Amino acid sequence: MTGTTIGILGGMGPAASVHFQKRLVDLTPAESDADHPPTVMWSDPQLPDRVAALRGSGASPVPGLRRGAEIIRSAGADIVAVPCNTVHPFLDDALGAGGYVDMIGEAARIVASHGITRAAVLATAATLEDGMYERALAAHGVEATHPDDQQAVLDIIAAVKAGGDVEALRARLFAVITHALAGASDGVLVACTELSVLMADAPMPDVVDALDELARETLRRAGIDPA
Amino acid sequence: MTGTTIGILGGMGPAASVHFQKRLVDLTPAESDADHPPTVMWSDPQLPDRVAALRGSGASPVPGLRRGAEIIRSAGADIVAVPCNTVHPFLDDALGAGGYVDMIGEAARIVASHGITRAAVLATAATLEDGMYERALAAHGVEATHPDDQQAVLDIIAAVKAGGDVEALRARLFAVITHALAGASDGVLVACTELSVLMADAPMPDVVDALDELARETLRRAGIDPA
Repeated sequence: MTGTTIGILGGMGPAASVHFQKRLVDLTPAESDADHPPTVMWSDPQLPDRVAALRGSGASPVPGLRRGAEIIRSAGADIVAVPCNTVHPFLDDALGAGGYVDMIGEAARIVASHGITRAAVLATAATLEDGMYERALAAHGVEATHPDDQQAVLDIIAAVKAGGDVEALRARLFAVITHALAGASDGVLVACTELSVLMADAPMPDVVDALDELARETLRRAGIDPA
Repeated sequence: MTGTTIGILGGMGPAASVHFQKRLVDLTPAESDADHPPTVMWSDPQLPDRVAALRGSGASPVPGLRRGAEIIRSAGADIVAVPCNTVHPFLDDALGAGGYVDMIGEAARIVASHGITRAAVLATAATLEDGMYERALAAHGVEATHPDDQQAVLDIIAAVKAGGDVEALRARLFAVITHALAGASDGVLVACTELSVLMADAPMPDVVDALDELARETLRRAGIDPA
């Protein structure tokens, strides 16, 4: 049992937000309901598009994020997790530095801890253009690389958002991962939560899933030792 | 796009509450994030045990349910769904009659609409003892039956709450379903949301999943025609 309430700003996208909650449940060692932490989630799928905003061509998601944060904090959230990589550069402004669990920094730390030196970052074009993972990985001495077929990555992300068949999309994602590992990269960082939805339960030591690391760090901050 | 916010009182149990959200996403016809409704969820896995409360031997979940409802209504919830069958008899008291989407009544309506006349109700012992489904089904001229191996049902529910292997538990649940349909029942009603977690995506005309019907009715009330 824990007295810490986990807050989630979700909906970016909706499937990823459900998957994040599933991973929180999966990674919590529990014999019964009461072993799980209280959780509050606000999901606003109508938040302005993060890709456009990060490129400076669309409305800012910051007001919507602030509103969501107010809702979950009023409900008692002690920790705020935002299961969307692309939106992370807006979070200092929206939630205050240190006001959320930093998925980008945590994922980069775990990549380095796995001994990976060149990580292929699978992400939206906006996440790559921003360079958020390039910087976070460099801080740990890890070089960020791009997959050969970035278009395939974008197509898979869009298909997940459109409710495409998970098994077929998983096969396409695993082809991208296998190709990256067969090339110049000795690791893969799954850095878009829509891609995380497709990851299998079986752990792969060369592949780090940012969403899973966000879930683990969120649980640790709630006083739970994740499975 | 919808202006209606869906509210969920979850955590009973946590896996079921995630699965309910997954079904909301799956059943929403969507091409992009913005086609999904805003959703707010409060999950309190530490709510007093509903089985004990329904048997009159434990603390009431009503104060906790009221607190959760207050949280999600303050956040803007226009509709309240509670993905737990066993707790339903407490909801009139906690949320007011008509203040929530009635999973029991909706599931019974769908069972009758499938032409089922004798439905094996797979549920917790407390749900069966209360007779909530017996009454709801009788109102539609459907007879409620019990599976031969009620202990297997209870074991599966407990195993889901303890994070057991989904594939193995699904096989056990399907054995119970197959046995019921081979006997005196011409339909099965999956009436515990922990069992719903194990249901496959493929529709089975003789099997009605109460959680799925709650998801569909919730979406309809949000102005969405479910898939």
